[in-house]
Amino acid sequence: MKLYSKLAALIPTLICVLSYAQTTPPSVIEDFKPSELNQPGQEYPMVNSQGYARFRIVAPAADSVKVSLGLGGRGGTRLTKGADGVWTGTTEGPMDEGFHYYHINIDGGTFNDPGTLNYYGSTRWESGIEIPAHDKDFYALRNVPHGNVQQVLFPSPTTNTSRRAFVYTPPGYEKDSKKKYPVLYLQHGWGEDETAWSNQGHANLIMDNLIADKKIEPFIIVMTYGMTNQMRFGGGLRSFKVDTFQTVLVDELIPFIDANFRTIGKQSHRAMAGLSMGGMETHSITLNKPDVFAYYALLSGGTYTPEEIKDKSKVKLVFLSCGSKERPDGIKNAATALTGAGYNAVSFVSDNTAHEFLTWRRSLYQLAPLLFKDK
Amino acid sequence: MKLYSKLAALIPTLICVLSYAQTTPPSVIEDFKPSELNQPGQEYPMVNSQGYARFRIVAPAADSVKVSLGLGGRGGTRLTKGADGVWTGTTEGPMDEGFHYYHINIDGGTFNDPGTLNYYGSTRWESGIEIPAHDKDFYALRNVPHGNVQQVLFPSPTTNTSRRAFVYTPPGYEKDSKKKYPVLYLQHGWGEDETAWSNQGHANLIMDNLIADKKIEPFIIVMTYGMTNQMRFGGGLRSFKVDTFQTVLVDELIPFIDANFRTIGKQSHRAMAGLSMGGMETHSITLNKPDVFAYYALLSGGTYTPEEIKDKSKVKLVFLSCGSKERPDGIKNAATALTGAGYNAVSFVSDNTAHEFLTWRRSLYQLAPLLFKDK
Repeated sequence: MKLYSKLAALIPTLICVLSYAQTTPPSVIEDFKPSELNQPGQEYPMVNSQGYARFRIVAPAADSVKVSLGLGGRGGTRLTKGADGVWTGTTEGPMDEGFHYYHINIDGGTFNDPGTLNYYGSTRWESGIEIPAHDKDFYALRNVPHGNVQQVLFPSPTTNTSRRAFVYTPPGYEKDSKKKYPVLYLQHGWGEDETAWSNQGHANLIMDNLIADKKIEPFIIVMTYGMTNQMRFGGGLRSFKVDTFQTVLVDELIPFIDANFRTIGKQSHRAMAGLSMGGMETHSITLNKPDVFAYYALLSGGTYTPEEIKDKSKVKLVFLSCGSKERPDGIKNAATALTGAGYNAVSFVSDNTAHEFLTWRRSLYQLAPLLFKDK
Repeated sequence: MKLYSKLAALIPTLICVLSYAQTTPPSVIEDFKPSELNQPGQEYPMVNSQGYARFRIVAPAADSVKVSLGLGGRGGTRLTKGADGVWTGTTEGPMDEGFHYYHINIDGGTFNDPGTLNYYGSTRWESGIEIPAHDKDFYALRNVPHGNVQQVLFPSPTTNTSRRAFVYTPPGYEKDSKKKYPVLYLQHGWGEDETAWSNQGHANLIMDNLIADKKIEPFIIVMTYGMTNQMRFGGGLRSFKVDTFQTVLVDELIPFIDANFRTIGKQSHRAMAGLSMGGMETHSITLNKPDVFAYYALLSGGTYTPEEIKDKSKVKLVFLSCGSKERPDGIKNAATALTGAGYNAVSFVSDNTAHEFLTWRRSLYQLAPLLFKDK
């Protein structure tokens, strides 16, 4: 009886330990390696095979160092100071595969992690970290012919400046001076800019690999800045008006690209796609300008209804995608409704990802083979 | 007498005020404007018309915030905390015109200023600030036709990877598919990379403006990473060996460029230039490979002696430059000796600049019209 009562007394402790073990996995595997987005020669941040991230920040006299990454909604990862004055910490759990933005809070101020490269998001250059995805080969730098990504500065009379775009030309573009190519106009999300699809998205490598594997016919991709209006800082999506950007894109950039690159400058060979806010832009502009684009793609960027589209005969493809941690039913139902109404509509849901770049890399990989089939 | 003694008592105070005024100029003009390299929407850092820089860092709980910029050798600028928890400070004096790297020390750790863009230098992405130069028009973004800067990934069997280069093609390159161009291979300095000449150097805008003003015939510029050896991290310049980079440049990159761009692929139409460590590389490689380059340029990167050059007939130009705050006599004397020995040698000294990017922007502006004259 004495033993039994001792055991009984232990029960609350055991329950407590067990439930603690469930929320804080004890099995963090110590196989951490530098994130592949680190600055040259930098060891930290590190990532392990489970998707945990570990951070290391030197700030010996600081009182508090936090990392904005961790588990969603739980306020990130608080680092602790070692005897050497160096702050370290590991995320509470594994993170989604793919790319994540983050920053460091040091004594109440927001800074970037000096260990890693910066990526433009949230209207600032943020730190970036990459959790290797199990399917990462499709956007890897492989030993295949590579296309080029070039910066062009195009005149924009309506905004009274030279604006920047990046243009992906496929391998072989320079050699065969006769061949002409279809064009995909590909937009970033809110707070990002025209660097996002190359830097965070690896759009060029995705294309190089698809072309090397003969899964697509080569095409050109054009990426420009889409926050050409009052919503750029503050204001949010509610005050979004597409007019200014639509004019830059349709009346200034497209004619410039058609004049300076070997494009097939026809509606039938022109696509528009965008992620998140870029999807909102794509939605509005494709509907406003049915004679400009024939292929429409919204990546975590909403849906179309059959009723919105004025002339069905002009739409060769509607592609709708998102991550499985977003609202995949909305995408699927919209594609079903469009298909039922006679459209060529495709939905794609990225496994185990949210509103983040692995969703969009995978979406581009799925979208590209569907473009420009109908020649 | 009573008044007089009162005045006498004030004399030490007056002297003190005057001497303080001499080391801390009282005449800082309050016309500070955001540095043109700030991140979108950021007010700070600011620069005034005299070249003072003012910084603002939010870190309410920090004990110490310092900026690495200030006056040379005096340890930068210590910021002071206001009642609002925001740290501010102004450089002790005006800085040289042009581009400067810097970083922030917060409680003993090194971070970037969240207000400004980052530039790769010192083997890390550093904060950048621009003190507007009185002659800044030559590298300004003007309303003229713009060339493109494109990223190429070229195969490098000797380093077992795809390596990156940026290629500037002049305006009109895409339109006239017959025309062929000479090529300048242009190298960055120690701790920098292949992004430096476009980002910090504005090489593309310098070219656009020179071409628009009909001061040069268009040519192509190729920029790649030059720290292809053991000196990349640590080791310093003493352990510098040019072999690895020379192989990548001469045996891998040049054939790739000649195969993929419309170049005049001959020694007579190929130049090499480099700044600082890139000048050391240029010096070694041009001397090692007299049949590859005909035009040699060292920007704050040393000199040639007539004795080093094996075959005078193969050298069409030797260009030597530096800032007036470096050692201009060395450049001038070397050019005089080369001219005396029958070389086409030119020296250029940039007024009131040191070992920094305004020296090199101006050097490229002076160099470009001298290249590829002898056709």
